[in-house]
Amino acid sequence: MTTIPPQQPSPMPFGRYRPFAPIDLPDRTWPSKTITAAPRWLSTDLRDGNQALIDPMSPARKMAMFELLVKMGYKEIEVGFPSASETDFSFVRQLIEGDHIPDDVTISVLTQAREDLIERSVQSLVGVPRANIHLYNALAPLFRRVVFRASKDEIKDIAVRGTQAVLKGIESYLDTTVIGYEYSPEIFTSTELPFSVEVCEAVTDVWQPEDGREIILNLPATVEVATPNVYADQIEWFGRQLTRRENTVISLHPHNDRGTAVAATELAMMAGADRVEGCLFGHGERTGNVDLVTLAMNLFSQGVDPQVDLSDIDEVRRTVEYCTNLPVHPRHPYAGDLVYTAFSGSHQDAIKKGLEDLERQAAEQGVPVGQLPWEAPYLPIDPHDVGRTYEAVIRVNSQSGKGGVAYILKAEHKLDLPRRAQIEFSRVVQERTDAEGGEMTPDEIWSVFRAEYLDREVPLKLNSVHTSSAAGEKDALDVNVYVDGELTSLHGEGNGPLSAFVGAINGLPHELDVRVLDYAEHALSAGGDALAAAYVECLVRDSVYWGVGVDANIVTASLKAVISAVNRAAG
Amino acid sequence: MTTIPPQQPSPMPFGRYRPFAPIDLPDRTWPSKTITAAPRWLSTDLRDGNQALIDPMSPARKMAMFELLVKMGYKEIEVGFPSASETDFSFVRQLIEGDHIPDDVTISVLTQAREDLIERSVQSLVGVPRANIHLYNALAPLFRRVVFRASKDEIKDIAVRGTQAVLKGIESYLDTTVIGYEYSPEIFTSTELPFSVEVCEAVTDVWQPEDGREIILNLPATVEVATPNVYADQIEWFGRQLTRRENTVISLHPHNDRGTAVAATELAMMAGADRVEGCLFGHGERTGNVDLVTLAMNLFSQGVDPQVDLSDIDEVRRTVEYCTNLPVHPRHPYAGDLVYTAFSGSHQDAIKKGLEDLERQAAEQGVPVGQLPWEAPYLPIDPHDVGRTYEAVIRVNSQSGKGGVAYILKAEHKLDLPRRAQIEFSRVVQERTDAEGGEMTPDEIWSVFRAEYLDREVPLKLNSVHTSSAAGEKDALDVNVYVDGELTSLHGEGNGPLSAFVGAINGLPHELDVRVLDYAEHALSAGGDALAAAYVECLVRDSVYWGVGVDANIVTASLKAVISAVNRAAG
Repeated sequence: MTTIPPQQPSPMPFGRYRPFAPIDLPDRTWPSKTITAAPRWLSTDLRDGNQALIDPMSPARKMAMFELLVKMGYKEIEVGFPSASETDFSFVRQLIEGDHIPDDVTISVLTQAREDLIERSVQSLVGVPRANIHLYNALAPLFRRVVFRASKDEIKDIAVRGTQAVLKGIESYLDTTVIGYEYSPEIFTSTELPFSVEVCEAVTDVWQPEDGREIILNLPATVEVATPNVYADQIEWFGRQLTRRENTVISLHPHNDRGTAVAATELAMMAGADRVEGCLFGHGERTGNVDLVTLAMNLFSQGVDPQVDLSDIDEVRRTVEYCTNLPVHPRHPYAGDLVYTAFSGSHQDAIKKGLEDLERQAAEQGVPVGQLPWEAPYLPIDPHDVGRTYEAVIRVNSQSGKGGVAYILKAEHKLDLPRRAQIEFSRVVQERTDAEGGEMTPDEIWSVFRAEYLDREVPLKLNSVHTSSAAGEKDALDVNVYVDGELTSLHGEGNGPLSAFVGAINGLPHELDVRVLDYAEHALSAGGDALAAAYVECLVRDSVYWGVGVDANIVTASLKAVISAVNRAAG
Repeated sequence: MTTIPPQQPSPMPFGRYRPFAPIDLPDRTWPSKTITAAPRWLSTDLRDGNQALIDPMSPARKMAMFELLVKMGYKEIEVGFPSASETDFSFVRQLIEGDHIPDDVTISVLTQAREDLIERSVQSLVGVPRANIHLYNALAPLFRRVVFRASKDEIKDIAVRGTQAVLKGIESYLDTTVIGYEYSPEIFTSTELPFSVEVCEAVTDVWQPEDGREIILNLPATVEVATPNVYADQIEWFGRQLTRRENTVISLHPHNDRGTAVAATELAMMAGADRVEGCLFGHGERTGNVDLVTLAMNLFSQGVDPQVDLSDIDEVRRTVEYCTNLPVHPRHPYAGDLVYTAFSGSHQDAIKKGLEDLERQAAEQGVPVGQLPWEAPYLPIDPHDVGRTYEAVIRVNSQSGKGGVAYILKAEHKLDLPRRAQIEFSRVVQERTDAEGGEMTPDEIWSVFRAEYLDREVPLKLNSVHTSSAAGEKDALDVNVYVDGELTSLHGEGNGPLSAFVGAINGLPHELDVRVLDYAEHALSAGGDALAAAYVECLVRDSVYWGVGVDANIVTASLKAVISAVNRAAG
């Protein structure tokens, strides 16, 4: 058929691996289904997510994560593994004793199926109005053979006795708490389906669900081992076998080893699952749990209520990056720096025509664009619906083959702009070229950069800086600043010079209302050159501005960067 | 059924969006299929990938990417959009005139369906032994209505006349070239399926495929707009309609707007597709093209020959990061920093037992572990098969709630270790705690760090450094180094002081064989403190070591870091 020379065998030892055996389910129904409602969500950011960080979250970061999850609308939150970790135990107590859990939020704790660990887990929950206890044990053949050296009956017995111990613990310690129960047959994806059903039925026999007393059976893709249709087949097959389906919640807990966790979750929802466990931006062991942000936004983009709030997706992202100390990738769906950006001229042209058409429709109907059904080339959702904007980025000087704006700033001026600052400055350059026509030389780009970021002196110009910090006290800052040309002394306090400075200038009569969103700094890279560059992303009233400051002193550089952003907002 | 309070409606305007209409295909066959062979791969890293970078690749980076793709085994490589960009045109000419294209590699160029652009594209290929011309136009209703304001017949006519112009161009300019043809009905996923078939049939009528003269019909998910089963349905439906299926190659070009491009590709391969277009690590417009690395490794993990070589996945990653100036995420399947790492004690225990079982089997059978079928808890593949290692990371001091090793180094010593260096040092700490038992205090961790990275002086210790650089010449470096205690003068040249220094020490009789893999540096963050820290990842003979150097001069700091790695390798 073809004249293309064939591909060659790989030198890799693929012969060591065996294909996953397909599920015999010719009458599967899920491929003809669609998703019409959000599942019940459980966030395990504070358990599976936290467990897989190089440095686990501090108590302050855990609380920031918990508050974010509550604010977004999550009603089921797994808050830790209290029997395995003293810090997790303390955090659960802190949540309960500090009264941090809203009435309609159910926390849950994970425990292994050992009596002493179950008792400890139950004790962590004393005093909470409602909670779920989540028990797991591993059922898969490899674990039976190599890890536990136990028979199927012995493994089943662990689950049954664990469930009995949970009932006993509830009776002993939690008489005033509404307690639910979740059981996970671990490594579900690699376990013989009939054995998973057998164990889950035995556990259900102990728990005795009935109306108003559900059991959650959580079926983890602990390791993703097959194409996502196989997980859907497993879920549909499993659901058909249950004797008490009406009082059973089928829950998913997918990991992303094959990069298809979102798809596996969606297909398994079509196959009958009721509930989904995951993490914001897909943290968790190894490749992570399924990403709750992408799942929710995928529902949103199909007109289905996601039942969580992502209308300020950058705020969610900043908090998660702060709590996990891990980045969100620039190409991450819905949240990445680059995903509402068009580089290609033909894409930009099509988007422009699409947006103009929406504006025309809005004018005809007398409504804002934000109330019209969304339809635009290359943009699956309206970026404004998540607090973002569409960016058309031109690449100046690409014809020279020497790269564009960011390349010139880095190669010729040693300034390594953060990605979002690069995008912002590209827009500044584009506005200039649109106005003046033609391409810009590197010198012209540099002079635009200086004028935009470095040389503005109104309303603020820094004169001098004094800082002091002492253990146990807030940092203090005294600065002399020209405000509209008049030298003014300002004093501020904060966790560091940046927050002290922002506090000080927010007290000026200009009502600047500045908030720092992001911050980066680096030394200019030539040997022995002591200059530092600071980049600060500021919210000034309702708009985001980057500022840039260069100085030998890195504190001064960062204050100059804030001033740069403020002066740009005013200019 | 439940006592869990219900979730609340989202404040987001999901009512603006409409669900994607499902495909009526009750007799679909793909859900019962499995994937048993690699597809034909096309890399579009140099076209769609390059097109979506803030700064496009320089010619040197393009060549590094092309050489990587060839080395990995890709036989079809889209090298640019020569009619849209002078740099793309020059790069195609450079490939051809410099004789860089192996005999069994087919390059392709993309063109819009306009006669002048087609002619220019054909001209770019003069002299190449084999190539494909790839023509596209947009068919989707929104594009017909808003962007082109054209009827279906007019849109079809653009495709037909474009194909005729390609034939004419080939006849005029390319009589000695084996030329193939690829046609993309753009925005295929949002186009009425019968119209896509109608246009593709009309294009096929013009090209007249026959045995030995295929036509490639490439069906782009230009924007991913539905769950991945819908794309599979579209592909299966489309394939059934074609009149010359035996001489047609059905090709996929999925984007990742919903985070399910890998899944969509796999399901569409099950639905009959022959060929896949994508990028290494999923670069490309917005959320990127489908990731060729994950697709290939997913095949590998099922015992299917991927027909490309990823046995040194870190080398692939480094080259792609160099070429794109964008990172690979720490949780990226198969390649991320964290994906072969276990943090949980129970995971570590299970993996240990699994690895011991494999070693026992290997000993019994008298073969290396690498020849046994792979089966281990939590590790879907043997990390060694991609040149990686399994890492068990303990988190020191997690009980104090103040974070672990990396936290202590950063909070108390201002050292912000790169992620892979953090993992390496955690292993060092673990070996020490395993040997000595118990937990470590922050002071003990710091003293282990100093002894391991900062205080080693054998075989090398830096005494003094002189550098010189002049425009147009290589940088020169003269250093005095104690080699096994004896002061020695060394001279080196290179693109910078680091490469000059590595060249110089590789000339020592120690046969160090050092290569720098990665490099990072930062100022120590206290105000006015001029010290810099440098981190260098070195390959020393066959093993990877990080080195750390601290000095007021950043060049000296980086040389100290290389010495730290070398001394660790020797120690």
